[in-house]
Amino acid sequence: MRVVVPFAAETPKTRLESVLTPAERGAISRAMLADVLSAIVGAGHEPRIVSTAPLDLETLELPSEVTASTSVTVDARPLTEAVNARLPGSGARDDMDDDPDAVAVVMADLALATPDALEALLSTDADVAIAPGRGGGTNALVVRHPEFFVDYHGCSYLDHREIAREVGASLETIDSFRLATDIDEPSDLVEVLVHGRETDRAPACLRGFGFELDDHDGRVAIARSDQVPK
Amino acid sequence: MRVVVPFAAETPKTRLESVLTPAERGAISRAMLADVLSAIVGAGHEPRIVSTAPLDLETLELPSEVTASTSVTVDARPLTEAVNARLPGSGARDDMDDDPDAVAVVMADLALATPDALEALLSTDADVAIAPGRGGGTNALVVRHPEFFVDYHGCSYLDHREIAREVGASLETIDSFRLATDIDEPSDLVEVLVHGRETDRAPACLRGFGFELDDHDGRVAIARSDQVPK
Repeated sequence: MRVVVPFAAETPKTRLESVLTPAERGAISRAMLADVLSAIVGAGHEPRIVSTAPLDLETLELPSEVTASTSVTVDARPLTEAVNARLPGSGARDDMDDDPDAVAVVMADLALATPDALEALLSTDADVAIAPGRGGGTNALVVRHPEFFVDYHGCSYLDHREIAREVGASLETIDSFRLATDIDEPSDLVEVLVHGRETDRAPACLRGFGFELDDHDGRVAIARSDQVPK
Repeated sequence: MRVVVPFAAETPKTRLESVLTPAERGAISRAMLADVLSAIVGAGHEPRIVSTAPLDLETLELPSEVTASTSVTVDARPLTEAVNARLPGSGARDDMDDDPDAVAVVMADLALATPDALEALLSTDADVAIAPGRGGGTNALVVRHPEFFVDYHGCSYLDHREIAREVGASLETIDSFRLATDIDEPSDLVEVLVHGRETDRAPACLRGFGFELDDHDGRVAIARSDQVPK
């Protein structure tokens, strides 16, 4: 299946600015993108990065089988517009795709995504399947209905349920902690260190910056073993 | 299966004190407990509340079939001790239980728990199955190994993985957003309003306090339509 991965290449992860330098935010964004791409390819699908600015796949240092399955398109439009232009109802067609009437959209900061978690989302029969994120977001979805469209502003999970209802699309919600965890804020980095797998890039990236888990006061946080001036 | 539900009856939900009065914190704790008990009974299991103080089941206003399956024991010990005293290795046995060698522990503040989400946890074959919570916690687990014990302090999810490894117990991690969402902090209340089902008590309780979803600035929060002095 065609799996659109929107990527904000220019201003990555601004909500992490209290704990990461701009260069570090760029590096962790690319590491998370690499992990998401690997999970999509691991689930047997083909990632189509839609980046707000040119992105050289080489710089992601992906395994060759991931690079071979991945394409990049630049689209500077806002997220909602860029995604809607690629949904089944948009008229966009891709001869390379074995199922042009189904399109998935997976956010690039789902650092905990695994092939299993993605497959649970991608393999439903519903017209629209949504993996909600914390705070009412839509972290990943599959669209098989030509009239469905996205609107990522506000409580998009509830809005997408309502849009599905209005266009008569069946809807399934995927209950996955891994897909619900987008990495936006400093407290989210804990999840990367707790649940990241050994082969994942994002936890290695954070550890490279000197971060480790810190539970000395009974609540788990992250701390830098070697505080770097930012 | 015997499903232990630890309940802090005396100082409920202190981390919600910035948004809820003490009486409201008590009410939302009991509403969440009622929802958890209903989900456990809905999954075909029997909740055993272990409360830090006496608790009158009548005050929970449960459906009769839930009350009939639920028992309450008072145990004032800290959480870890109270749970360890009820695991398979503790020697505690219950003739009423059809599977005395398996014990589940489900936290009382998993307001989004559903029978399906619980069944995914309770039906594994692993010696130990864990549904992690955000921040490295252990929100629910099943223990079928006589040497496994819990330690809820710190990053308990990683500690429990390590304990399982040390005692030679097989381990499975359950990927569930519903079970990963414990309601501890004000931002967690958003999840209750977004994902609570119509029959659930906790969202009705919050709406009764005047809370509603507020996404006017593009990020979803909760707001009180009628600010009550606290």
